[in-house]
Amino acid sequence: MPDVHAVRRSRLADHLSQEGLTAAMVTDLVNVRYLTGFTGSNAALWLAADTTTDAGARLATDGRYRDQSAAECPDIERVIDRALARALLDAAHLSPGSVVAVETHSLSVDAYTGVTELLTASSVVARSIDRAIEQLRTVKDKTEQAALRQACDISVGALDALHAGPLLGRSEREIARDLEQKMYERGAEAVGFDTIVATGPHSAIPHHQPTDRMVADGDFLKIDFGARYEGYHADCTRTVVVGAAQAWQSDIYAAVRAAQQAGLDACVAGRDIAESDREVRRALDEAGHLEHFTTGLGHGVGLQIHEDPFISARHTGKLHAGTALTMEPGIYLAGRGGVRIEDTLVVTSGAPEVLTAATKDLLELP
Amino acid sequence: MPDVHAVRRSRLADHLSQEGLTAAMVTDLVNVRYLTGFTGSNAALWLAADTTTDAGARLATDGRYRDQSAAECPDIERVIDRALARALLDAAHLSPGSVVAVETHSLSVDAYTGVTELLTASSVVARSIDRAIEQLRTVKDKTEQAALRQACDISVGALDALHAGPLLGRSEREIARDLEQKMYERGAEAVGFDTIVATGPHSAIPHHQPTDRMVADGDFLKIDFGARYEGYHADCTRTVVVGAAQAWQSDIYAAVRAAQQAGLDACVAGRDIAESDREVRRALDEAGHLEHFTTGLGHGVGLQIHEDPFISARHTGKLHAGTALTMEPGIYLAGRGGVRIEDTLVVTSGAPEVLTAATKDLLELP
Repeated sequence: MPDVHAVRRSRLADHLSQEGLTAAMVTDLVNVRYLTGFTGSNAALWLAADTTTDAGARLATDGRYRDQSAAECPDIERVIDRALARALLDAAHLSPGSVVAVETHSLSVDAYTGVTELLTASSVVARSIDRAIEQLRTVKDKTEQAALRQACDISVGALDALHAGPLLGRSEREIARDLEQKMYERGAEAVGFDTIVATGPHSAIPHHQPTDRMVADGDFLKIDFGARYEGYHADCTRTVVVGAAQAWQSDIYAAVRAAQQAGLDACVAGRDIAESDREVRRALDEAGHLEHFTTGLGHGVGLQIHEDPFISARHTGKLHAGTALTMEPGIYLAGRGGVRIEDTLVVTSGAPEVLTAATKDLLELP
Repeated sequence: MPDVHAVRRSRLADHLSQEGLTAAMVTDLVNVRYLTGFTGSNAALWLAADTTTDAGARLATDGRYRDQSAAECPDIERVIDRALARALLDAAHLSPGSVVAVETHSLSVDAYTGVTELLTASSVVARSIDRAIEQLRTVKDKTEQAALRQACDISVGALDALHAGPLLGRSEREIARDLEQKMYERGAEAVGFDTIVATGPHSAIPHHQPTDRMVADGDFLKIDFGARYEGYHADCTRTVVVGAAQAWQSDIYAAVRAAQQAGLDACVAGRDIAESDREVRRALDEAGHLEHFTTGLGHGVGLQIHEDPFISARHTGKLHAGTALTMEPGIYLAGRGGVRIEDTLVVTSGAPEVLTAATKDLLELP
């Protein structure tokens, strides 16, 4: 069975061939990891469209990563040289007239200038790769789905354990640290992003940073968090009430839950990605709360916490089976409180597979 | 007393004037934070060289950050618009022939293309800012030094507390999590970077990632870690022996300690930055271990964990009072073990102020 990274490189090589590109110089480190498994902080990958030549795939990194690159990428030729781009171009022996794809969306102007000077000296042309690797990454393979599933299981396990203990009187910061510790105990390699713990009126702030405010009786407690596992990110939000829910809290909670379900129902392979956004907004509008939903609906998730595709009215295109997304509508009532319910899911030909399997019933916790 | 950010902007405006630049479009978020205090994830700053005009300073960000930008940057005109560059340029009303500095070292090619198209339409020229803000940032003002000092105090307090407990039999991962928890308890806003805990033979790997390996009797225990406080990073490494030190351990420890002291002694305002590197290498060579020092000697530290200036034979230039640096020589004996001693310091006209005031005596801990 070919290595999962070799399969990904083969898909990119096919794309390069179709676009009439000789090779790609991959400089974005997330994309390098996706295509090779290398996790260090300095590297570039050369990938030829014609994988039958000895040029094939070649990874350049510096001396700090000699052993690590050998361990992580045993099947790829490696060059240890601080001048990554120069080393890769020297090794490639390009013919005049070759066209090299570069990552103009992330490569800095100065780095690009350096690369194009080297290319021009060999009568070779640079062209934008036009986010081709980000596009490939939108459909997760089995290895990626397994890592996402594990990241989500760790996260949900940690949240359930947190919810099992008393919450009243604990500070936002303390709850955040406790939840993070519980993710580590369950095998998280890292906390995927800054944990949001928002109590009472703070829950109306979509991206609140934890403070020393203590959970009071009757507060909403909104937690947006996720573990990282083998590089893949879980992203989950649940909102509970500490004490007994008041009517307005139950009302907006029910509205968000129904809106999220409407979004999930529209999230099917082959349908337009904007349909979920339309359905969620329709549901929130019917509940009289459309104006209180002030964030984006969702985003791709994988090696990055936010990646292509994004869900909004501005983003169109068909959903594909295997795409991992978040779906995170909310209602935010400034000064009072807010609710967000967010899942990480994988698109299928039927109902999406929801990976963050924590209950969405409104919990009233002590 | 003028706001610290206004003082920094004034210094940049002076630089722009001297270079014949009309204004700068600052897109690097760390630099935006340095010049404004804004901590959100999407913004750009317009700064005119002539600060007497109403163009002055203007911050663009999107709707998510309307309230946060108002709270963090009350003294700057703000534009809320998703099209950051366009909004800033529209508001600036530039005359034909103006020259706008852009951050070509970090701005992507695609973003730069968008900006230059807008500029060309107004007969305005773009020019590289040539890392001018990174250069300003190398000298820390009092506010920055206070934040660095606090980050280092938190870090040292956490390490001392960790060292006070038993270490034998604990895993690298467990020790890393415990140390991080202790930093949070002491007021860290975040862990500044991935904590390195390396035991026994793992200590020979400069940038080892914690595993489930347990501390065994006679092991080196090398910990490289640091807290973040108000955006500023501490960076500290200490190596201890768990149990009784063997002669080879005491020998390489003493060699690293002496080499680090030689580096600190050469780290004086007005002297060349490469002198510390020469002195450290001379000391390690005399000890017969120069070949076992395989990393860089140090780097600037502040809003980023690694920033200008870097200390190595390749980097020259004078040291300035107020520059914050790390000094981190090591000896790494593959398969056996290694020692690194690292401090965060501030350059002065005399001996550097070492902010990471943990003992450098070789500790033998239970």
